[in-house]
Amino acid sequence: MTSDQSTHRSAGTSPAPAVAALDAPEAIAAEVTAGIAEFLESKADEFRAISPDAAEIANALVDFTRGGKRIRPVLLWWGYQLATGEGFDRVTLSPALAQAAGSLELLHAAALIHDDVIDHSDTRRGKPSLHRQFAGLHAEAGYQGDGESFGVAAAIVIGDICLALSEELFETAQTTLGITPAARALRAQLRRDVMIGQFLDVRAEVMPLDDDRIAERAWEVLSYKSAKYSVEQPLLLGAALAGADEELLREISRFGLPLGQAFQLRDDVLGVFGDPAATGKPAGDDIREGKRTVLIAESMNQLTAADVEVLAARLGDSGLTDAEVTETMEMLRSGLEAVESTIEAKYAQSLSVLEEWSDGAARIGPEARRQLTDFAHALSFRQS
Amino acid sequence: MTSDQSTHRSAGTSPAPAVAALDAPEAIAAEVTAGIAEFLESKADEFRAISPDAAEIANALVDFTRGGKRIRPVLLWWGYQLATGEGFDRVTLSPALAQAAGSLELLHAAALIHDDVIDHSDTRRGKPSLHRQFAGLHAEAGYQGDGESFGVAAAIVIGDICLALSEELFETAQTTLGITPAARALRAQLRRDVMIGQFLDVRAEVMPLDDDRIAERAWEVLSYKSAKYSVEQPLLLGAALAGADEELLREISRFGLPLGQAFQLRDDVLGVFGDPAATGKPAGDDIREGKRTVLIAESMNQLTAADVEVLAARLGDSGLTDAEVTETMEMLRSGLEAVESTIEAKYAQSLSVLEEWSDGAARIGPEARRQLTDFAHALSFRQS
Repeated sequence: MTSDQSTHRSAGTSPAPAVAALDAPEAIAAEVTAGIAEFLESKADEFRAISPDAAEIANALVDFTRGGKRIRPVLLWWGYQLATGEGFDRVTLSPALAQAAGSLELLHAAALIHDDVIDHSDTRRGKPSLHRQFAGLHAEAGYQGDGESFGVAAAIVIGDICLALSEELFETAQTTLGITPAARALRAQLRRDVMIGQFLDVRAEVMPLDDDRIAERAWEVLSYKSAKYSVEQPLLLGAALAGADEELLREISRFGLPLGQAFQLRDDVLGVFGDPAATGKPAGDDIREGKRTVLIAESMNQLTAADVEVLAARLGDSGLTDAEVTETMEMLRSGLEAVESTIEAKYAQSLSVLEEWSDGAARIGPEARRQLTDFAHALSFRQS
Repeated sequence: MTSDQSTHRSAGTSPAPAVAALDAPEAIAAEVTAGIAEFLESKADEFRAISPDAAEIANALVDFTRGGKRIRPVLLWWGYQLATGEGFDRVTLSPALAQAAGSLELLHAAALIHDDVIDHSDTRRGKPSLHRQFAGLHAEAGYQGDGESFGVAAAIVIGDICLALSEELFETAQTTLGITPAARALRAQLRRDVMIGQFLDVRAEVMPLDDDRIAERAWEVLSYKSAKYSVEQPLLLGAALAGADEELLREISRFGLPLGQAFQLRDDVLGVFGDPAATGKPAGDDIREGKRTVLIAESMNQLTAADVEVLAARLGDSGLTDAEVTETMEMLRSGLEAVESTIEAKYAQSLSVLEEWSDGAARIGPEARRQLTDFAHALSFRQS
């Protein structure tokens, strides 16, 4: 990391802004993308040396990790900036920090690959999901046995390999960045919490809709599978890699957790009401999957007993007609207002922390505040 | 690790035996088992704090990891002993070394959990496999949706969590044992190679039986999915954790790789001809699964074209009758002799390395040699 002024900061110690100005997150995303591609291509060579067949693994991962918004890498970089308070003229990312950020993308790719198997999803980012790709390959090549099973098997194993590569890339980053106990603990938490959140999601989907823990469960899933993992923990990990103290980590959580909740609540809204052309997922995808989101829990508070019965029968029915999906979407509009106002409130809560940081403590300068505000707004009110 | 004499050794430097005597591997296995249970129970508390539902994850893992032969932990410990050359009156294991060894068991548990999903296996160690357990739980509780899918989803995620916990336990061990680049690289290789081996296994199963790479593929799967991962790499990792130099690591590979190959060739034989009461797997399990083992490749060399056609139709057909399985087993007897003599040869090759170690270099004393010979014999000629 090139730097003019490099100081480790804790909360509220200096009136001079620590982060004065930031360039576009796109630059970070591009550097991370290049780093991942370089890493995976070096692995492709290693894999090919083991067996010509193993080259397919790396090829599939190179392709799979090409897409995505790189939200977690960008947040890791923000966390790092908040902790180092480094000034800079242009956005740069040391190779080691790009590796740490790239490692989060590989972890995320692994989670998505397994998610798609679990949810029987046919598409991801507008392309066939990995298990569908391998089932397709099986059909094209006229291989033996059941193509569906082959696709699922390949996707489970490639997801596992992607997890292993995520570890490897993070370990490489650590050798340069150094390992603090806080960073190690955060990495372990992040890696584990997303999977626990995923288990809770799978678990919630099979519970009766009128179960009295429905709202509580929806918030557990939202927090662990996404709000922490996608927003709060990448910020914290970036800060910890820069040696942030506990006070700063607590401050960052105050900003990151509500923002993460707004981010996932938006995801839940888009999962039902999103435009397929923008999201790359079919209309009402979450309805056919039967996801038990906060939107569902809020709708339950508004619907009549008769409607609840219809809703219960439809959630998780992958064979719903488009008309039934549209009808179910209409039912879920009853919970939309409550969710939208929760998103507003969570977004506002995160902004109020930014405001504190800009005032007395002056953790960030006006330009950085503007950019973080823009980013928070994009996370909370995006269309895809 | 309590120790009277502690010296780091490289090959052939001293005539005094480095490992003089060893107690039963059972003592190591018991300590590792206790360490895993303690770790998982501490995790159960953390999981319960996240959600009451998450406690099921740790409970399932406590139960799943109770069984098993602990071959990899025992080998890790042997590797450590070979590198430190520590003398001792009784078998002891430092808590950190027990954690490193336990971490291998958790990695193995994760691989087995995913393996069983991939192979549609109903049983593991004589009990229902994890995905069957969760499908059973679904049925008992009368949950909503498809129980099979729920079981598979739960097993995929719990396997992922088990992988994460394996990392966590290894990282804990590393903070005490220290991290050498060799140990880090070996851990990464071990974790990755088993999954690549698993991919190659999945990949080989869908190829036509008369493909000309069948034998080559079978040896690739055998080496990466098992011989290296189960035997050579645990030995190497243990040695690397004790600070072994490259020469010693090469020596250990000369012993460990052929032994690992014998170990897996035996596994292939047991997968077809093993006694279900001893293996805990149904008779001819590998036939119904369609595994493309070295045994299959060797049989292909002996069978008539007509028999090959029958074999091709039967391998991987989960609906075979018991009579058809028995008939197929008879066909595969044609490759058995070649496999048995390869096992003999690989076992002898590993023993000849032990012999070298006992002579000039005197890496090990007579009692240690006897015990390692016994262990190698058990791995190569076991009944279950």
